[in-house]
Amino acid sequence: MEFFFNPSSIAVVGASPERTGNSLLINTAINKDVAVYPVNPKYQELAGLACYPSVSAIPHDLELAILLVPARFTPQIIQECADKGVRGVMIQSAGFAETGEKGRELQAKCVETAHKAGMRLWGPNCMGLVDVPGNKYYTFMSPSITDTLPPDGTLSLVVQSGMLSAGFLADLATRRGIAINKACSIGNKCDVDECDVLEYLLQDHSTKGVALYLESMPRGRLFMELAEGAAKPLVVLKSGRSASGAKAALSHTASLAGDARLTQGLLQAVGVGTARDFHQLVDLGRALSLLPEAPAGARVAVLTFSGGAGILSCDLLEDNGLPLAELAPETVTELAKVFPAWMPPGNPVDLWPAMELHGPGPTLDHAVGAIAQDPNVDLVLMHTFLGGSQEQVNLAKYKQQLAAKGKGMVFWALGLDQPVKKFEAQAQAQGVLVFNELARTVDCLAAASRPSRRATRAPRPQASGRPLPTGLPPTQGVWDEYQAKRLLRAWDIPTVAEELVSDLDQARLAAEKLGWPVVLKGLLPGEVHKSEMGLVCLNLDSRAKLEQEFTRLQKLMQGRGSLVVQAQRKPDYELIVGYLKDAQFGPCVMLGVGGVTAELEPDVAFEMAPLDQPRALAMLERLRINKRFDGFRGEKPLDRNALAELICRLGDLGASHGEISQVDINPVAVCDGEPMPLDANIIWEN
Amino acid sequence: MEFFFNPSSIAVVGASPERTGNSLLINTAINKDVAVYPVNPKYQELAGLACYPSVSAIPHDLELAILLVPARFTPQIIQECADKGVRGVMIQSAGFAETGEKGRELQAKCVETAHKAGMRLWGPNCMGLVDVPGNKYYTFMSPSITDTLPPDGTLSLVVQSGMLSAGFLADLATRRGIAINKACSIGNKCDVDECDVLEYLLQDHSTKGVALYLESMPRGRLFMELAEGAAKPLVVLKSGRSASGAKAALSHTASLAGDARLTQGLLQAVGVGTARDFHQLVDLGRALSLLPEAPAGARVAVLTFSGGAGILSCDLLEDNGLPLAELAPETVTELAKVFPAWMPPGNPVDLWPAMELHGPGPTLDHAVGAIAQDPNVDLVLMHTFLGGSQEQVNLAKYKQQLAAKGKGMVFWALGLDQPVKKFEAQAQAQGVLVFNELARTVDCLAAASRPSRRATRAPRPQASGRPLPTGLPPTQGVWDEYQAKRLLRAWDIPTVAEELVSDLDQARLAAEKLGWPVVLKGLLPGEVHKSEMGLVCLNLDSRAKLEQEFTRLQKLMQGRGSLVVQAQRKPDYELIVGYLKDAQFGPCVMLGVGGVTAELEPDVAFEMAPLDQPRALAMLERLRINKRFDGFRGEKPLDRNALAELICRLGDLGASHGEISQVDINPVAVCDGEPMPLDANIIWEN
Repeated sequence: MEFFFNPSSIAVVGASPERTGNSLLINTAINKDVAVYPVNPKYQELAGLACYPSVSAIPHDLELAILLVPARFTPQIIQECADKGVRGVMIQSAGFAETGEKGRELQAKCVETAHKAGMRLWGPNCMGLVDVPGNKYYTFMSPSITDTLPPDGTLSLVVQSGMLSAGFLADLATRRGIAINKACSIGNKCDVDECDVLEYLLQDHSTKGVALYLESMPRGRLFMELAEGAAKPLVVLKSGRSASGAKAALSHTASLAGDARLTQGLLQAVGVGTARDFHQLVDLGRALSLLPEAPAGARVAVLTFSGGAGILSCDLLEDNGLPLAELAPETVTELAKVFPAWMPPGNPVDLWPAMELHGPGPTLDHAVGAIAQDPNVDLVLMHTFLGGSQEQVNLAKYKQQLAAKGKGMVFWALGLDQPVKKFEAQAQAQGVLVFNELARTVDCLAAASRPSRRATRAPRPQASGRPLPTGLPPTQGVWDEYQAKRLLRAWDIPTVAEELVSDLDQARLAAEKLGWPVVLKGLLPGEVHKSEMGLVCLNLDSRAKLEQEFTRLQKLMQGRGSLVVQAQRKPDYELIVGYLKDAQFGPCVMLGVGGVTAELEPDVAFEMAPLDQPRALAMLERLRINKRFDGFRGEKPLDRNALAELICRLGDLGASHGEISQVDINPVAVCDGEPMPLDANIIWEN
Repeated sequence: MEFFFNPSSIAVVGASPERTGNSLLINTAINKDVAVYPVNPKYQELAGLACYPSVSAIPHDLELAILLVPARFTPQIIQECADKGVRGVMIQSAGFAETGEKGRELQAKCVETAHKAGMRLWGPNCMGLVDVPGNKYYTFMSPSITDTLPPDGTLSLVVQSGMLSAGFLADLATRRGIAINKACSIGNKCDVDECDVLEYLLQDHSTKGVALYLESMPRGRLFMELAEGAAKPLVVLKSGRSASGAKAALSHTASLAGDARLTQGLLQAVGVGTARDFHQLVDLGRALSLLPEAPAGARVAVLTFSGGAGILSCDLLEDNGLPLAELAPETVTELAKVFPAWMPPGNPVDLWPAMELHGPGPTLDHAVGAIAQDPNVDLVLMHTFLGGSQEQVNLAKYKQQLAAKGKGMVFWALGLDQPVKKFEAQAQAQGVLVFNELARTVDCLAAASRPSRRATRAPRPQASGRPLPTGLPPTQGVWDEYQAKRLLRAWDIPTVAEELVSDLDQARLAAEKLGWPVVLKGLLPGEVHKSEMGLVCLNLDSRAKLEQEFTRLQKLMQGRGSLVVQAQRKPDYELIVGYLKDAQFGPCVMLGVGGVTAELEPDVAFEMAPLDQPRALAMLERLRINKRFDGFRGEKPLDRNALAELICRLGDLGASHGEISQVDINPVAVCDGEPMPLDANIIWEN
């Protein structure tokens, strides 16, 4: 990818004296260390550079070609580039796959030509590449916009949509003055995709974090693996949640996963932040790349000029699970020195009365100095009003004082337009975050203290590859509960005690052995909705009841399928553990809450398989109901290790056998803290 | 309140040639129709006006006095005002109840003096009152800020916090150019509170909507009643959610209510929008006051320049429960006239390819014209990029075309700073909403289509006032289940069949009458946690089991309390219906989801009591799990009318008897769609 980001020579095909062809040439030629060759048969010279009639006419070696010509001309130019030995082609023109069948064919032709020649293709239908610290602007955006991009950004952007990336970058730069390191617009991703670009950016020294807007993730598994191994924070905005909907699927696992829930779940699993809007994506990305990593449950001190804003901050911190710091006695003593006598210092630290006594600047200096020393404070939420006499915020000093103690600081700024703009520019230069909305400010603080952020993890285990035991039915279609559980037990997954029975005597013996009451189930080939079919008989606590139901089931099933007697367990609650081989993300496991209410408001966590115990344990904590696992309302605490082990084993089973499509272990009954699979089915690929 | 909003004469006490005393005088004197008298013993003239040494020295009638003097001088000045016959005093100074005990005493003294004289007090510790269309600026804010307030706003603000209201107003005016109608800063609300101001604003012709930031709601009941009767939309940001926490309470109802959940629930019940941040409060308020009221489930057309932004819009619309409009065939035909042949028109309407063919302006004109005629479209979400050649948005025309068909329009604008600012100003003048974040844009669209908005409701019913039946125990302490259910039945609330039993024979007879299996419960005086005490015996399906448990309970209870045998019902799910007499909000009812999971993630709705059937039915729909009531997964649909009737009767019982503090009907079992109270208790005030 180096020849896209750092080429020694570039042909600008479609350069012209006007409009986008002019902008692209002028932008590209800004960097004088790169040889730039405009290509346009109509001109001999453009922007003071020799212009060539074609790529082949360029009498120099060529690393990169940028194409901004009508789509129909591109296949031929790409062939020329291939013949010339060009290493990468960036197609910024539109008119390809996004325009229907004809465009798709055109795009496929370009890819074919490039691949034959070992050449990489970037785009088409994209805004290109901007690298602010590298002084590289390979884009048709107006030079007036590229001029305004502030220097020294640490966050790099990857944006799939072409139109949007140009518009959004212009907005970020001119309206908010936000500094970006690199902006990579990847358009239709006919060859180079987010994984290629992400791999490069993870190695790039000046990039401290990456924010991605993606409409599709065709190499989803690779993306997640890259993200999991990344030493830099990532944030993703994935659109197209509603369009995808839930897959029509036989298993609960697949229907609960859908495309969107699985994607979000895996992003969480590998520690990637997720956003739901464009500016929020950049804000969270900057927060993660600028703030020191805070511990889970980071304790926040709020320094404010307004009691009201302090109260609202508490609400918003609580919504985000961030506790207010309990100030150390030394801090309280220090603050009391500037506070009026009637006002005991607390957190939020309401500085207004002290500011009226000592002036805003000295008060704030004193307070920040005290808070910086406080061992009970991890993060500082600063409120500031800019416009009156109070804009005496020693940004650089505060940042240095707090950073020296590993504490992050974020500002909520309110005030008059010009003073706020000035403050924002200063903050930008110091790498300090400022927001105009309190909720966004707190969201960004919370992002910095999320436990999964940059957590160091052991490498993912390999699948054991253990062969299937012998004596099982053919691995196709849907396996019934008895067959499925036999396979689960072969992977040391415990299941409820049960016996296959062929007559009433066997059923009675089994019941007596297992202990009353028992469950009697009829298993029909391919049938996964047993309850709805009346094939599940619960609460059989006497021989009479067993006999009655046995006879009924025999009649109902008419000699097909088989009957099984199971020990009956009364669960405190039910979970679902599932496995799913996903087209984008490969082998995955799911943990979810069972029951009807959970179907209305799914509570699920995902991971890629195979996985290890720590990753499985982390899945438990990502469920909203995780508090229940501690033993809520007198229940016995869940044996978390046993459940995690179960998930790991199921993941290993699936990952070891690619012919498994889906597995539901549903329900996993939790009785006195012990997780126990009661029912299961396996769906094979064929 | 007219003398605060529209006084004929004002004394500015604390006027001075500098700082806030100067600002207040200059601002107040802007309006030449009002007689303004500066008061300050140090000066004879200020700002060209005759200055008086004291209020009593003013030789004219006086309607309003604004005080900006140190707190300690205020009681005496208020006495002077009273003697002079002033009707209202607005104290803008700080240093009162917010500063502790001494300040509280000072404030109480002011209130006492004012009340004796029949005078109203506004403040203290506030920014005062700004009325932009009325050209009234009774505030110490810098005149440079009041100058920049844009004209013609329709939204009025009520802000409790003093510091915040000044800062926030400055921010709104100078940074966002947002037009406000009136801004009322009510500070410590020692006398005039949000209810007084709201009553005035609801009558005020130029105010089309009201947004309130509140830290407390001491007259909560009155506030809710005003809101319910309001013909204008209201939005509230209530802070202090975390501080209040859940009340330590005997009943589930009270602990589930807390302060915050009850407040939010009642605001929802009376159709008030709720916000969680300051700018969002104003944005939602403007949306509600500017957009035509859309039907529930309003259908949205998205007009965009970017396919990517279109996709994300679908996600955000779905999150908010807003369906995409299915365009009428005529609209599709119209759009096809400007679309390229390869692109079939759809919704989102991606206009970029058409814009490339016909230019942005004509394309947009054509598309908006077609959408305006579409009977399947209720709301229009417009995306615009401002900065290139595309700023040809005929705002006035589009608004007129769409408004003529009752359709609302909201813009998401991205682009270069200056063009966007220009567009925002034009939009402001046209009363059109523009946002820079897509999520906020969609939130505001959603607010306009919320079903409870401005719904016309029948007047609230009166409590029946029916007397308690005779023969009940003393109305004090906690009533046990049997006693509570007797009273419920007297209010025609059905309860599970049960019999009080005093010996084993009676228990056996009761069980045989009710039908096996039965439940046996021990009722101990004052004990509401029966299950935890081992006093509830389920699944008694034989005489032997009944005998065993009866004996055990007799031993456990040692002759205290009583025993009851109940028919056992196996619910499909459990609900809680409760009653609560709240200090702020008076008699209230609650409907909630039962069970352990619901305790971890409460799903509750509230209403004031007494209430009617439509209000009770609306509570059902506000629960997150309301889909289940339709008969989820083969369950029988809930008899909604029966549940609503139950809630109404409980509300009437509580509202008729002020000595009832709390009632829990928990659980209300739902069996085959029928709601059936299984257990209950009543807590009396004494």
